[in-house]
Amino acid sequence: MPIFKPDELRRIGREIYEQMGASPEEAEIVADLLVEANLAGHDSHGVVRIPQYVSAIKRGQIKLGTSTEVEKETAATAVVNGHWGFGHVTAKAAMQIAIEKARDCAVGIVTVHQCNHIGRLGAYPPLAVDAGMAGLMTNNGHGADRSMAPFGGLGRILPASCMAVAFPSDRAFPVALDLTAAAAAGGKMRVALARGEQVPDGWLMTADGKPTTEPGDYVHGSASLVPFGGHKGYGLGIVFDILSGAFSPAGCTRENSPVTGNALFIQAIRIDAFVPMDEFSSEVGRFIDYVKAAEKAPGFDEILIPGERSWRTRVDREANGIVVEDATWAQICDVAQDLNVKV
Amino acid sequence: MPIFKPDELRRIGREIYEQMGASPEEAEIVADLLVEANLAGHDSHGVVRIPQYVSAIKRGQIKLGTSTEVEKETAATAVVNGHWGFGHVTAKAAMQIAIEKARDCAVGIVTVHQCNHIGRLGAYPPLAVDAGMAGLMTNNGHGADRSMAPFGGLGRILPASCMAVAFPSDRAFPVALDLTAAAAAGGKMRVALARGEQVPDGWLMTADGKPTTEPGDYVHGSASLVPFGGHKGYGLGIVFDILSGAFSPAGCTRENSPVTGNALFIQAIRIDAFVPMDEFSSEVGRFIDYVKAAEKAPGFDEILIPGERSWRTRVDREANGIVVEDATWAQICDVAQDLNVKV
Repeated sequence: MPIFKPDELRRIGREIYEQMGASPEEAEIVADLLVEANLAGHDSHGVVRIPQYVSAIKRGQIKLGTSTEVEKETAATAVVNGHWGFGHVTAKAAMQIAIEKARDCAVGIVTVHQCNHIGRLGAYPPLAVDAGMAGLMTNNGHGADRSMAPFGGLGRILPASCMAVAFPSDRAFPVALDLTAAAAAGGKMRVALARGEQVPDGWLMTADGKPTTEPGDYVHGSASLVPFGGHKGYGLGIVFDILSGAFSPAGCTRENSPVTGNALFIQAIRIDAFVPMDEFSSEVGRFIDYVKAAEKAPGFDEILIPGERSWRTRVDREANGIVVEDATWAQICDVAQDLNVKV
Repeated sequence: MPIFKPDELRRIGREIYEQMGASPEEAEIVADLLVEANLAGHDSHGVVRIPQYVSAIKRGQIKLGTSTEVEKETAATAVVNGHWGFGHVTAKAAMQIAIEKARDCAVGIVTVHQCNHIGRLGAYPPLAVDAGMAGLMTNNGHGADRSMAPFGGLGRILPASCMAVAFPSDRAFPVALDLTAAAAAGGKMRVALARGEQVPDGWLMTADGKPTTEPGDYVHGSASLVPFGGHKGYGLGIVFDILSGAFSPAGCTRENSPVTGNALFIQAIRIDAFVPMDEFSSEVGRFIDYVKAAEKAPGFDEILIPGERSWRTRVDREANGIVVEDATWAQICDVAQDLNVKV
């Protein structure tokens, strides 16, 4: 399997999207965020998506050259319409609006609709951290993307909605949580199926409520994802759906949604409105050290802090490159060749 | 076991605290919130605590007549010092500050330190709902209350931190989530022990990492609570601790904290800054109906929405009264007699 420097993958992504008609700025944001997902170890949201977004442009799902429009706002809040441009571009612009509002008002909240899939949610809250803030984001499937059963119910009723949060620290990495309300995201079923593996107990349920470990029951069948932690993960999924769907004009999840994408709830909070930034980040650092110093459970040689594993993967891949699976690379080469992009 | 009308328990609680020297306002807020916990079905945070708070006043942990001080603020944010008054009084005042700020700024965030235990977190976000807002609250143990192991670790390292969220709906009840990062709160171990029952698998772990279902291992021993959903509940616990502890001067959890109580992160968000209130509440209502209409899983005859069970318990107990266990009632009578309060 070929290994690439991050910059090489960024260039390829950028040139492919520019050849498709994206502006240099659009192409750069999307290519950077795809490679960012690979650097963080979330390959399912990385360059594997390059050909998929090319198809989405061709069939008109992703509309190029649209602008991110603020439809309604107060000093601290905004409702943003992405006009079905690249979801990554919309989400980054919306997070930047939240950050600007938090500079003035100590807190900024932006909700987003008419937004295509934005990739890895965890990519955006760190933009707030870079500005001396905490960042938070939730999504739903813009009313669609139904894949998870409710607690006590059967069938694909809710999306695997996500929440990502990031806080500054004075250690090498920010504390960064990125979780879905499902026991595992649907992408992990596709990976397991491709590898011919079973998935762990507790991830999937058949249409009549029996547990299954066969990822094909989900990918090709009617099995549904299961909320993590039973009624608690289900409850979080309901909260993420309302934050993302009811606070934006997109709406919560429904049967027969006419569109798919991501509705978003985005928040930035300026730390120094509460405590001095250096006190906050050193307190978070102290807390990290305290938790990591706990005695290890049998089978563990380390206690990880949320965000620590992604940070380590990034350090490794920035130094040693990003491995791209052969099938993915072949697909990227096909697209690049069609568009006269050098690979 | 005796059964009481809510107003009768409110009167008893109020008179006991007034006799202890609390102001009429302090006494009323605390008594109302204790009975509110019983109405919601959370008896562990209800009138069972009346004698406990009397003791806390006597030993000076709860200081009467203190005021809730805003130490630092912007138009949208505040840091509040409770000066170790009744936690319930501090938390309600802080939520009301967040609501007032959200009236002006669309969003209000208040963090709180030097605050005693506030009881059931879920009691406060509905105050925001009554004002046409969404409400959110997280807590930690003001640096203390260590009871839960980190994922991959052993021992009592983190508190069972909580998050409560509430949203308006046009149905009979608001959507209201109130969860702890632990698989179950420590109070449930005390209840199980008192009843001579085992607790479910996955709630507790011994000091050397073995699962146990014996609540005495937690109440009298060194067993620890386990995060719900493994690394995800653990990650949420870290997030709740940072929101509550690092954004307030209280600090995150530590070894040898000199004090115990609740540090708080409180947020109110004005709905109509984003979408018209009637559209929001009807969309949430539609979403409730949609989720509840799903096919039921084996063993379930209904799908419950977060907040629905508490609402039903309240309707029942307001009509039929609140049952108080004999031992609890005897303790309340002892305290009342000492203070010449009629029971």
